[in-house]
Amino acid sequence: MHIHPKHPQQRPTKPGLRQNLYDIIFEAEESWGRAFDIGLLIAIMGSIAIVAIETLPSIQTNPGTVLWMARIELIFAILFGTEYAMRIYCTRYPWKYIFSFWGVIDLISFLPSLLVGFGSPRQNAFVIVRSMRLLRVFRILKLWRLMSEADVLGATIWRSRGKIVVFLAVVMVAVTISGTLMYHVENRPAADGTPSTSGFTSIPQSMYWAVVTMTTVGYGDIVPHTIAGKCISAALILLGYSLIIVPTGFVSAEFTAARREAAGQASRPPARRVCPACQADEHLQQAIFCHRCGTRL
Amino acid sequence: MHIHPKHPQQRPTKPGLRQNLYDIIFEAEESWGRAFDIGLLIAIMGSIAIVAIETLPSIQTNPGTVLWMARIELIFAILFGTEYAMRIYCTRYPWKYIFSFWGVIDLISFLPSLLVGFGSPRQNAFVIVRSMRLLRVFRILKLWRLMSEADVLGATIWRSRGKIVVFLAVVMVAVTISGTLMYHVENRPAADGTPSTSGFTSIPQSMYWAVVTMTTVGYGDIVPHTIAGKCISAALILLGYSLIIVPTGFVSAEFTAARREAAGQASRPPARRVCPACQADEHLQQAIFCHRCGTRL
Amino acid sequence: MHIHPKHPQQRPTKPGLRQNLYDIIFEAEESWGRAFDIGLLIAIMGSIAIVAIETLPSIQTNPGTVLWMARIELIFAILFGTEYAMRIYCTRYPWKYIFSFWGVIDLISFLPSLLVGFGSPRQNAFVIVRSMRLLRVFRILKLWRLMSEADVLGATIWRSRGKIVVFLAVVMVAVTISGTLMYHVENRPAADGTPSTSGFTSIPQSMYWAVVTMTTVGYGDIVPHTIAGKCISAALILLGYSLIIVPTGFVSAEFTAARREAAGQASRPPARRVCPACQADEHLQQAIFCHRCGTRL
Amino acid sequence: MHIHPKHPQQRPTKPGLRQNLYDIIFEAEESWGRAFDIGLLIAIMGSIAIVAIETLPSIQTNPGTVLWMARIELIFAILFGTEYAMRIYCTRYPWKYIFSFWGVIDLISFLPSLLVGFGSPRQNAFVIVRSMRLLRVFRILKLWRLMSEADVLGATIWRSRGKIVVFLAVVMVAVTISGTLMYHVENRPAADGTPSTSGFTSIPQSMYWAVVTMTTVGYGDIVPHTIAGKCISAALILLGYSLIIVPTGFVSAEFTAARREAAGQASRPPARRVCPACQADEHLQQAIFCHRCGTRL
Repeated sequence: MHIHPKHPQQRPTKPGLRQNLYDIIFEAEESWGRAFDIGLLIAIMGSIAIVAIETLPSIQTNPGTVLWMARIELIFAILFGTEYAMRIYCTRYPWKYIFSFWGVIDLISFLPSLLVGFGSPRQNAFVIVRSMRLLRVFRILKLWRLMSEADVLGATIWRSRGKIVVFLAVVMVAVTISGTLMYHVENRPAADGTPSTSGFTSIPQSMYWAVVTMTTVGYGDIVPHTIAGKCISAALILLGYSLIIVPTGFVSAEFTAARREAAGQASRPPARRVCPACQADEHLQQAIFCHRCGTRL
Repeated sequence: MHIHPKHPQQRPTKPGLRQNLYDIIFEAEESWGRAFDIGLLIAIMGSIAIVAIETLPSIQTNPGTVLWMARIELIFAILFGTEYAMRIYCTRYPWKYIFSFWGVIDLISFLPSLLVGFGSPRQNAFVIVRSMRLLRVFRILKLWRLMSEADVLGATIWRSRGKIVVFLAVVMVAVTISGTLMYHVENRPAADGTPSTSGFTSIPQSMYWAVVTMTTVGYGDIVPHTIAGKCISAALILLGYSLIIVPTGFVSAEFTAARREAAGQASRPPARRVCPACQADEHLQQAIFCHRCGTRL
Repeated sequence: MHIHPKHPQQRPTKPGLRQNLYDIIFEAEESWGRAFDIGLLIAIMGSIAIVAIETLPSIQTNPGTVLWMARIELIFAILFGTEYAMRIYCTRYPWKYIFSFWGVIDLISFLPSLLVGFGSPRQNAFVIVRSMRLLRVFRILKLWRLMSEADVLGATIWRSRGKIVVFLAVVMVAVTISGTLMYHVENRPAADGTPSTSGFTSIPQSMYWAVVTMTTVGYGDIVPHTIAGKCISAALILLGYSLIIVPTGFVSAEFTAARREAAGQASRPPARRVCPACQADEHLQQAIFCHRCGTRL
Repeated sequence: MHIHPKHPQQRPTKPGLRQNLYDIIFEAEESWGRAFDIGLLIAIMGSIAIVAIETLPSIQTNPGTVLWMARIELIFAILFGTEYAMRIYCTRYPWKYIFSFWGVIDLISFLPSLLVGFGSPRQNAFVIVRSMRLLRVFRILKLWRLMSEADVLGATIWRSRGKIVVFLAVVMVAVTISGTLMYHVENRPAADGTPSTSGFTSIPQSMYWAVVTMTTVGYGDIVPHTIAGKCISAALILLGYSLIIVPTGFVSAEFTAARREAAGQASRPPARRVCPACQADEHLQQAIFCHRCGTRL
């Protein structure tokens, strides 16, 4: 069995229990390592599900279920705690791991639950902290090399940061102008003096409406009520729609370009062979004789 | 008339009624087979329409119409039953057909309706079973070779399963984080102590909101009520929109690549030159000598 | 002035008033013809606006405005009637025009309004007939050659009719299955026996919900109320979204291919020149001397 | 330090305070100029935020906060006023600047606020005028050359103005026909004579619904209530969706084409060979003799 460790400086040098444990926990190249990752993935999903289900009103009003939930959560916390201890045990320089990004995430993914489990009062703030264990999903995916796909995407986004800044500026300006315009149009009091009952109560509210509308989400909690407001918002919707298809088209073009480059590199001949007799190039890769003069290549 | 049967092992070997029936029912190459397919397509559509219309409240409160519906349904069931019997009759190995995927689908597309029609009480669960006859539409389309289009799509999806897994993971994480965040922001009690009346009653509910919002469906049954919630959700909408245009762009790029490959294959020389000595093909268009054996072409 | 008539068989042969009138009304090549088209375009828009504004409740409750509207409508009807008479007068074979598609559209674009204007009671059905004058906009655009853009689109759609049929079949099946599923999930009576108050009152209603949801319109008039319904509909939304981006990607690919073909034809060298001395080809288009041997081409 | 002024005719000729000030305020090539731009950007954002926040009901009912807001606004107005004075001071021809587009925008971005600040009653109309200072964001972005991205977009849009006109015409016709159709379908009184309570109260209202629906915004303030209306609107949604993906695909194709052209230009040989005799460039890479004069390269 030959392992290519991802962080060779952390792998124990001497073969034995620690090195085997390291290969299983930190690497994903052999069946035991893969099984560990899948198990961890399921445990993370399960514990996140518990965090979410706990907030359901039908659960919170039932003391029995709350207790059960707390117990399952405690089991997950002990599980993650054991995993944390094992990670410290099998790395060559434990402190380096403890203060690394993933080390901190690993710690806070079980510590609050353990504290709550052993008597500390349940606090709402803990829920957000506990949700951060979700980030560990990415570490496992990273091990599986699936992240190389994400890297391509990240590179594409980074290459087009100039366009993104311009686009966000245009969207912010469009949102602000639309919001200001609709606020004034919808808030004009009616002819008979009764005040407007419009949902466009302020410019920030109208800007929220503009974002919701321009992205075609369209909740419908704030809608124009006056004829003028409806005409203007129909025009704004068409304009906003035109604006918002621009990034879609741009992302398509970037992906198409990335796809074409990849295809181009794959089809390029590795080296061009030239006929020694007539200097013709452009031979097929499998050619044995020159296609122009028949000389053996 | 020359038939290229799709499943030659099932076609009766001796010419006669059974073989003719087989060609009409299982193949779509001649006018009678096409007519049978179109008739079957209409019957499936009609019977599905009956299943759907039956559930309309204005129909269910009218006993006369319910009776009529049941009668039409029975006619369809008898029709499909006859078709099933004919399929068994004209295949060479009937049991092979009966236990095949399409055989089972064919059976359950008429059996529950027949049972209901002949006295068995109408049961809700039957509706789902009866709806499964819809799958038979695909068999007919398959016969018509339209499915080759779907095959291209399926191949594209299969080739990009890595990207899909990463993307679904990112969406799930984004949905969970957005949901947890909005649950906490919207559920904070107001300054005067009155409890929140927000629709974000639990994290699963907030995650449902996040899915509805990020796909720009935007029902509006759950919307943020606090200023902080509106600000955060406007930001999440813009982020979510950026996330959701990624697969659109990716699908576009894949289709563009498939289109280009198809065009490339179409523009290749239709007539391939073959070496008279060694039978090698794939010569360059300007080749004078065979690239494998050096013989003059 | 040289006119290339679009329908030469209808243009009067002898120069004179009729021929000049024909060139102005039926052609768009010179300034008078263009001015006539723009005027007609404005008149059509204006008359359609009148039809629409007439239905506003604030207009309908005010007898004075209704009268004014009717008068303006009558003026438009007389205008279109005059234009119709002029078209009959200046075509070579009037009956051929009268019974042509555009002739019938021209007639019904003013006849009902004239009847209403001269005493016939106002009928709702007339509104739809009157709206058909909108189609005349396309004739004017056709004259202006803008329609060649639309022709490219039409050709693209026609070339991919196979894909469209498959896609519509898949969408119909997805809508039917989603609708049936949600109808059963949402209509299950609660544990305490109270009947469901869900909006999913029937399968057709649920199918309407599925169409509204899968296209990301998301009105919010029908939304899932049960936890199971929300989970399933979140999954259906993600699936439906994946389904609905397929045609977007496909249209992008088709446009990209059309764009590339157009670019390819533009950049292709019209004819390749070969050097008479050394037989080298691949010369620049503006080359005067051979780039390999220096011989004058 | 070498400055390439953007408007050299406005830059003071003699080195000194005025020239330095000009370089800082009007140019963005050195650190001081960049710092000034970033500061101005923050001030514009902040002042726009003040305009928006001022309209919040919770702010408007609190006299203390209103006063504070007015004071901050006054500070911004004085800041922008000082900047305006400095711009006038350091340009070579001040009147040319004052009557230029940006000069007018600069003036109205602080004048109304100054007037309000020094006693003139607060007027609603001023809010729109004050919002126009947002346009100044674009001047700063222009200096930063980010706008070259926007130029590409602008060129793309201009090149496809023919397609845009046809598309807008088709959308307008589709909206009008859908609106008219739905108005008639939804407004038919029920069988028992009770009038319709539909939201489709008039054709303009129905056209507003059609815009909201076809762009997949889908507020849900106006929804079909009758079965016929739901069937027709489901069909219209699918048709409208097909219509609205066309510009998305088109924008994608245009971006892909622009991307490919850019890539094509990038892959061209960077070093161009020039004929020593006739100075002609644009030789083929394998050229041995000049294509224009036949001299050996």
